[in-house]
Amino acid sequence: MLMQELRGMPVVNWMNEKLAADLALLGEKGVEPCLAVVRVGAREDDLAYERGILKRFSEKAAVRVVEMAENCSQEQLDKTIDGLNADESVHGILLFRPLLRGLSEERVKKTIRPEKDVDCMGLVNFAHVFAASGEGFPPCTPQAVMELLEFNRIDLTGKRVVIVGRSMVVGKPLAMLVLAKNATVTVCHTKTKDLAAECRNADILVACAGVAKMITRDYVHERQIVVDVGINVLDGKLCGDVDYVAVAEHVGAITPVPGGVGTITTSVLLKHTVKNAVRQLAGEA
Amino acid sequence: MLMQELRGMPVVNWMNEKLAADLALLGEKGVEPCLAVVRVGAREDDLAYERGILKRFSEKAAVRVVEMAENCSQEQLDKTIDGLNADESVHGILLFRPLLRGLSEERVKKTIRPEKDVDCMGLVNFAHVFAASGEGFPPCTPQAVMELLEFNRIDLTGKRVVIVGRSMVVGKPLAMLVLAKNATVTVCHTKTKDLAAECRNADILVACAGVAKMITRDYVHERQIVVDVGINVLDGKLCGDVDYVAVAEHVGAITPVPGGVGTITTSVLLKHTVKNAVRQLAGEA
Repeated sequence: MLMQELRGMPVVNWMNEKLAADLALLGEKGVEPCLAVVRVGAREDDLAYERGILKRFSEKAAVRVVEMAENCSQEQLDKTIDGLNADESVHGILLFRPLLRGLSEERVKKTIRPEKDVDCMGLVNFAHVFAASGEGFPPCTPQAVMELLEFNRIDLTGKRVVIVGRSMVVGKPLAMLVLAKNATVTVCHTKTKDLAAECRNADILVACAGVAKMITRDYVHERQIVVDVGINVLDGKLCGDVDYVAVAEHVGAITPVPGGVGTITTSVLLKHTVKNAVRQLAGEA
Repeated sequence: MLMQELRGMPVVNWMNEKLAADLALLGEKGVEPCLAVVRVGAREDDLAYERGILKRFSEKAAVRVVEMAENCSQEQLDKTIDGLNADESVHGILLFRPLLRGLSEERVKKTIRPEKDVDCMGLVNFAHVFAASGEGFPPCTPQAVMELLEFNRIDLTGKRVVIVGRSMVVGKPLAMLVLAKNATVTVCHTKTKDLAAECRNADILVACAGVAKMITRDYVHERQIVVDVGINVLDGKLCGDVDYVAVAEHVGAITPVPGGVGTITTSVLLKHTVKNAVRQLAGEA
């Protein structure tokens, strides 16, 4: 069995090592990097993500949870973001989405300060991802995929990357990120004909469709790298978009769920928050 | 010979027919749709584009050419855009790019009013293209490709669209537009391995690489639709990215250069300008 399991924790440790110098510098200057998490209501998946952030940031950076009432008004939400935009002690702003009920993220998209926009909610960072400018902060999940690939020294130049899923938070921005690394990228979705054949044609297959275990043995080949971004609940257990048991022995490398890409996401948040704290310090120096 | 030549003029005529009702309505209300063209200096390719716009808009909408000195300052350029943003008689703003010398479009990107941004220069329309929101105005050239496909009743659902070129003005936004129409899209470029094989794999092949006659017979197949977005000068003559003579008899359909996609671009500008004039009228009513 030659299959390599690509786990998230070694990537997290590597990212922490790379952040150490920045954190030491900030410590010397008495700056504590701080992420403001804006949560409307108390949905269980938001709370789970919040716990993950608190754990990953522990002893490295502060997390300020701003909990808003489930029935808060648009004006209150917008004012909260405005306040965090203006607050110099806040280096990153994360608003849990999707928002509840009638609340809209449209104004936030336009007003969130790009340098505090650690999960690419606003138009400016969005444009950076599209333009492959190398500036700004891409959304955390696709960036987590990029960190995983980089840590494992997987060069994308000339590789065929096939992405299953075309969401605004994963599929589309990831297509732009791998394109910037010179991959030939194909985006597939529910309307794709012969999806299995498209997937078999990939050097690197990324599943981000949000459909439990949809990638089965006939979608893969022996030299393939399979990155599973899906997080689904099936029969009360977490699983990815890839049928891991059916596929793992028939590919070159694969990420598990849980313990794969999802593990890295909060480290990307930490990295973006710290990078902005350093940038702000440099601007003030 | 079964090959169908997909020319631009029938698409232009069809688009004009579809605009007639809007133009009649505007005429009744005494509104003349107006595009402001901002040109810095007098480069020959800008002037050629300008002549094309004047011709296409003739007797339908006004074109106000704002010529700025080649050595104008950033402040002057920004002020010009601010003025056109505020001017209620202007329904569309087109700034010829790339800008000369040290002039930057960064501020314009952030300040141009989205509803006047008829060629998708600003961040908001950019985000609309990425999000496939169906709102805003996509850039004119990729939208011209979409008009050509729609006029020829080429349904993209489940089709394999291969795009050669990854520019911000054509390749990337076109990938988003065809994805929104449910195509399976692949973006290729200079780093793609075996580009000919990738291209042969397409139902619809779009060449927008800016390399004269690079698509040759071994890139195509008999049932393929080939859309040539390239406009190059070779031996003093205009040609596309497709070697038309070598390819035409071996594909299902193909656009010529000149007389293909390029012909449609100015009609997209006209359409966007008129649509915004109607929108503004409705807002005032």
